[in-house]
Amino acid sequence: MRVVAALGGNALLRRGEPMTAENQRANIAVAARALLPIALEHDLVLTHGNGPQVGLLSLQNAAYKPDEEYPLDILDAETEGMIGYLLEQELGNLLPAGRPLATLLTRIAVSPHDPAFSHPTKPIGPVYDREEAERHAAEKGWSIAPDGAKWRRVVPSPQPTDILEIGVIELLVRAKVIVVCAGGGGIPVVAIDDGGYVGIEAVIDKDFAGALLARSLKADAFLMLTDVDAAYDGWDTPEARPIREATPDELAARTFAPGSMGPKVEAACRFVRSDGGFAAIGSLADAARMLRGEAGTIVTAAGRGGPLGARTGGLVGAAT
Amino acid sequence: MRVVAALGGNALLRRGEPMTAENQRANIAVAARALLPIALEHDLVLTHGNGPQVGLLSLQNAAYKPDEEYPLDILDAETEGMIGYLLEQELGNLLPAGRPLATLLTRIAVSPHDPAFSHPTKPIGPVYDREEAERHAAEKGWSIAPDGAKWRRVVPSPQPTDILEIGVIELLVRAKVIVVCAGGGGIPVVAIDDGGYVGIEAVIDKDFAGALLARSLKADAFLMLTDVDAAYDGWDTPEARPIREATPDELAARTFAPGSMGPKVEAACRFVRSDGGFAAIGSLADAARMLRGEAGTIVTAAGRGGPLGARTGGLVGAAT
Repeated sequence: MRVVAALGGNALLRRGEPMTAENQRANIAVAARALLPIALEHDLVLTHGNGPQVGLLSLQNAAYKPDEEYPLDILDAETEGMIGYLLEQELGNLLPAGRPLATLLTRIAVSPHDPAFSHPTKPIGPVYDREEAERHAAEKGWSIAPDGAKWRRVVPSPQPTDILEIGVIELLVRAKVIVVCAGGGGIPVVAIDDGGYVGIEAVIDKDFAGALLARSLKADAFLMLTDVDAAYDGWDTPEARPIREATPDELAARTFAPGSMGPKVEAACRFVRSDGGFAAIGSLADAARMLRGEAGTIVTAAGRGGPLGARTGGLVGAAT
Repeated sequence: MRVVAALGGNALLRRGEPMTAENQRANIAVAARALLPIALEHDLVLTHGNGPQVGLLSLQNAAYKPDEEYPLDILDAETEGMIGYLLEQELGNLLPAGRPLATLLTRIAVSPHDPAFSHPTKPIGPVYDREEAERHAAEKGWSIAPDGAKWRRVVPSPQPTDILEIGVIELLVRAKVIVVCAGGGGIPVVAIDDGGYVGIEAVIDKDFAGALLARSLKADAFLMLTDVDAAYDGWDTPEARPIREATPDELAARTFAPGSMGPKVEAACRFVRSDGGFAAIGSLADAARMLRGEAGTIVTAAGRGGPLGARTGGLVGAAT
């Protein structure tokens, strides 16, 4: 099977944990162990978030020379280097010798007219108390928004339309190279009049970028790996119940938390509607079981319904 | 021809120039225009230095949380993202539509017993007056060394022994993809007992990494592009005279500035001695002319001597 897996930024650096190199390495080592069985058996394309990391780089920039802060597209590129390297190192050390692995810098086109540019929603960097967040907003011109009981900086998160390096990614996957790409949702660029591209300050949602990647590669499965074990009906209520399987239409009838489970469900639906492969949302530790339909929320096209075991068994069988 | 070109960190960010994103973009746009004719006519693999950039990231880290500063291997990875993205953007915008270009994160193995780890020599970051450099050394544990009339931080610069991603680079070159790789000399790693690798704090010299890259790819030409037009006899004296052509043996009999022209000459000799291709050292603006043997210092294997025009004409002809 051809599998695209998206790792949440919070799977790489847990919420509230200090953003040290050691913590990132330790979390990424855990992620690598969870991904290993998939890497050994399938063609794996790995993408990842960068919310905490791009926020950290922005704070480091501001602390050194606030007047010379680098724009977000360059910071996105830096996080692709940082996280790609750590993933490559940890996963590479678990793979048999000679199994190639590559991290590819990835630019993703967005529309300059995307409404996200006037309505920033993507949280980056650490969480703050409201008062501290408001002080940063006043001093640095940040947009801020609540995140649970805390507050965070938010930046524009436009929709990805086109992965500029998709041809190279396809070439590498066919050559049985494990590819880390589209990190942090890709580096956002917009087309210019003479046919080229320039960077733009934004952070693309990594699940939407992952869905586009999975669709563009005609993947058999698209896994979104996070710190909860499934999408839930009645999340945060006493009646909370994990959704084991659903079609895009069934999910469209429900509501999920914006900026959290909402984009994952939407990304799953986009991929499944466009392609016919299946999507799964769940815990990083369950990655291999999700691929067998044994864990997480499994999203498949209408008409493939039926009992979970039989249906996903059939799906995986058909796709292998 | 298969051409490996190494861009000096100072070609990306001129000495003494503020390290802003705008300055880097502007310099990289100039570099892209100089490289375009080569990219259009040949298979181009591009590598680059990161001295100013990795120094900047280290200062940004220290300004934010000095106790949580990221190690140099991770900062090297970040600079591969930053510089690779800018090169890709500027060169990509000059290329005809559909000509693929990829930036590949690159790890390069070094020996943990390399004497460089006890004798740091590689300058990174900005230049300082002596007094300021000594204050940083005392406060942050830096090693420092003179750089012209100024002082800079120096870090270990071990010899590269093995490019871990070389198979993927070869695959991309064969597929006619322009590849940006081994940026900043590559991310330095050392082999561990169970067959894997871990990062180590160092900055590999990008010319030595470039020579290894050129040798590993069996390149026809290895260009080192910098801010002087050639290697000189009697540099900084009234008798200064550019060296137009030489063999490795002829160069070995001379001395060049350590940490500056010295490593370039040594890198040229290593490549030429191992392979039979030719190396050239010169100004970024002369890149295309250097490839035709019309500018820079041209280094060829012994026995290929003769008048410059005839010799390099023959060489280029033989390699095409």
